[in-house]
Amino acid sequence: MITKLSEEEIKASLERTPEWSMVGEAIQRTYRFEDFVAAMRFVNRAADAAETSQHHPDILIRYDKVTLTLATHDAGGITEKDFALAAQADGFYGD
Amino acid sequence: MITKLSEEEIKASLERTPEWSMVGEAIQRTYRFEDFVAAMRFVNRAADAAETSQHHPDILIRYDKVTLTLATHDAGGITEKDFALAAQADGFYGD
Repeated sequence: MITKLSEEEIKASLERTPEWSMVGEAIQRTYRFEDFVAAMRFVNRAADAAETSQHHPDILIRYDKVTLTLATHDAGGITEKDFALAAQADGFYGD
Repeated sequence: MITKLSEEEIKASLERTPEWSMVGEAIQRTYRFEDFVAAMRFVNRAADAAETSQHHPDILIRYDKVTLTLATHDAGGITEKDFALAAQADGFYGD
């Protein structure tokens, strides 16, 4: 069973993923793309990664913007799994 | 230039698409699927239809639930385009 991170651990992790921020009991980032097609391409890569790791973010697509929201509901908070998927998605984005 | 529908026209259209409801200046429906993979399959069909018609809904994916929110920003409200895409998405869902 994965345990949720402490506030200090979250703070340290957010320093390594500076584009992400805490929103309630989750971490969130909005990515911007050239257009809707590019946004959907990213969404499908992120969805494949989510399915592989069996850890699924909330995904909001608004034309050329994609917002990922990550939390670990089983642990009642934010865990290493969230930061792992965040880093993976950042990799797909290319930054 | 497409013009926004009147309240009466919206009401009549919503009677033909009863699973949709008005949320602010938009129409919205949440679909439920067997799992995330099935949800993503639907999202991709809806995204293809959106790109073909150059009319893009906001799409929120929460594991097995997909919420589409449709408005025509150019017209400042809800138009026939929104109900056309809503009907198309309903067709992909199979109801």
